[in-house]
Amino acid sequence: MDSTYVVGIDVGGQTSKLGVVDARGTVLAQTVIRTDTYSEIEPYIAELADAVKKVIKDSGTEGKIKGIGVGAPNGNYYTGTIENAVNLTWGGANVVPFAKLLSEAVGGLPVALTNDANAAAVGEMTYGAARGMKNFIMITLGTGVGSGIVINGEVVYGHDGFAGELGHVAAVRNNGRTCNCGKTGCLETYASATGVARTAREWLELTDEPSLLRSLDNIASKDVYEAAKDGDKLALKIFEFTGKILGRSFADFIAFSSPEAIVLFGGLARAKEFLNGPIEEAMNANVLPLWRGKVKIVYSQLKESDAAILGASALAWEL
Amino acid sequence: MDSTYVVGIDVGGQTSKLGVVDARGTVLAQTVIRTDTYSEIEPYIAELADAVKKVIKDSGTEGKIKGIGVGAPNGNYYTGTIENAVNLTWGGANVVPFAKLLSEAVGGLPVALTNDANAAAVGEMTYGAARGMKNFIMITLGTGVGSGIVINGEVVYGHDGFAGELGHVAAVRNNGRTCNCGKTGCLETYASATGVARTAREWLELTDEPSLLRSLDNIASKDVYEAAKDGDKLALKIFEFTGKILGRSFADFIAFSSPEAIVLFGGLARAKEFLNGPIEEAMNANVLPLWRGKVKIVYSQLKESDAAILGASALAWEL
Repeated sequence: MDSTYVVGIDVGGQTSKLGVVDARGTVLAQTVIRTDTYSEIEPYIAELADAVKKVIKDSGTEGKIKGIGVGAPNGNYYTGTIENAVNLTWGGANVVPFAKLLSEAVGGLPVALTNDANAAAVGEMTYGAARGMKNFIMITLGTGVGSGIVINGEVVYGHDGFAGELGHVAAVRNNGRTCNCGKTGCLETYASATGVARTAREWLELTDEPSLLRSLDNIASKDVYEAAKDGDKLALKIFEFTGKILGRSFADFIAFSSPEAIVLFGGLARAKEFLNGPIEEAMNANVLPLWRGKVKIVYSQLKESDAAILGASALAWEL
Repeated sequence: MDSTYVVGIDVGGQTSKLGVVDARGTVLAQTVIRTDTYSEIEPYIAELADAVKKVIKDSGTEGKIKGIGVGAPNGNYYTGTIENAVNLTWGGANVVPFAKLLSEAVGGLPVALTNDANAAAVGEMTYGAARGMKNFIMITLGTGVGSGIVINGEVVYGHDGFAGELGHVAAVRNNGRTCNCGKTGCLETYASATGVARTAREWLELTDEPSLLRSLDNIASKDVYEAAKDGDKLALKIFEFTGKILGRSFADFIAFSSPEAIVLFGGLARAKEFLNGPIEEAMNANVLPLWRGKVKIVYSQLKESDAAILGASALAWEL
């Protein structure tokens, strides 16, 4: 069994990354294709299948592939379908039988599929910061806030396959920010990369506080990070606020599943030096005494360039 | 296997109820002993063991008992201990090895133990409204708000055995009511029987609105229910408010585990006629579109006088 390998595919709105991975989490060969040049699923699957065959050949693992794991927006683990994925050019209002189509196109290899955050959780459990953990919550801090919940060593998929949408719990109940999902006050409107940029723009507008950020035209979370590193007080306050919002929500998540740790991943998690203090403070101020100081905040240990492929690939070991 | 039986014990602050139950959820014999007359655990266990032997004898099931299930405040499923249960006279700041002590006192029958809300969830899954469900959340609306979360057919105990404390998520973030747990704004300060009475007292104080409740000295949630049945407008508004607070929180719970249903149990759940509309409205207004109108609110089907024993007993079938 040491000589089996898996394929991981991360389906993003613009590109799809894929690679062959061994049991230790080494990516042996990888490539990338466009996602957004296809308005129909069939030609996309055909190119993806060719790319899969290519990386298998490049890595010299023909005949030794256990299966394929796919992380995709709105991926449903139970059915292998991608449902109403508006950010995928061929997703639209359809239910795409992705796993079935791909499996057929690659000669019958089994395919497991889930959303990107669940895939990240499995990746972290298999190769990363959550190795050995049976109960943890993965939070991905990217353009949005995603989550993958692991209980008793298994990802929680829920009744319909879509459990773990913690980016859309209420961080702010009244007069909260409008979210892409149609609701207001969702966690991801505050605690994502987009949310941080939004906080910056709001605060620059509402206060006269001097800040390096005032000279910029189009503020991104990365700019806030750079300014914080330069000691900019407003930027530091933005991370304090963001960390507090996250920590308060984490306290409620702990009341749900009592995890050993909350694992953070994604672009915004790189601001650990500014976020971690406020997160831990707010989290411990808002949990029941029995959990105070007991739940770890840990940061992904996967190499960022490989993480998406690794997360998706890890799914395939369970096939 | 049809001829095996289980014993269920519900340990409450004042009394402990116990009974022998068959596979269909019929209570064949039951009795009750005091909990609060003992300041030490040993004499309490001795009397409890005698009572267990008595109900087994009364039901004619000697030699056919599969095991004993116990529901108790702060019960830890993993360790069989009751930890820091301040409402139990012999609980205090101790870790009481309850399952071990009881098992020894009844001649070695296996004992499983968890908290009351988790026991209620297993009871509902085994004999009640959640039969056939693999993913649901049990919410007990009593003096406090308790919860038992079932995912993939199993109760969630978490890393430490104490998962599922949804009575202590933040229902109100700022200027929320003080909770017994030391935090503020916890769900149970609003949505329990105590919370409803608190809302009534607050609103009577803050407004001049006429109400039948004004004539009462010491308002309990039952009084608010009676007033609502008599068409009292303030009482009806109190249930509307309570249902809204519950529904908003349920929306966040759904984002976590995507349950098929939320099952309500307890004294306050009897006010279904006034609570259910507001709960469903607020829940569906606050969930992601993909769950809108899809998650059922159901009410316990267990006979209230038997429910505590049934819930605890159901644990023993898994031994």
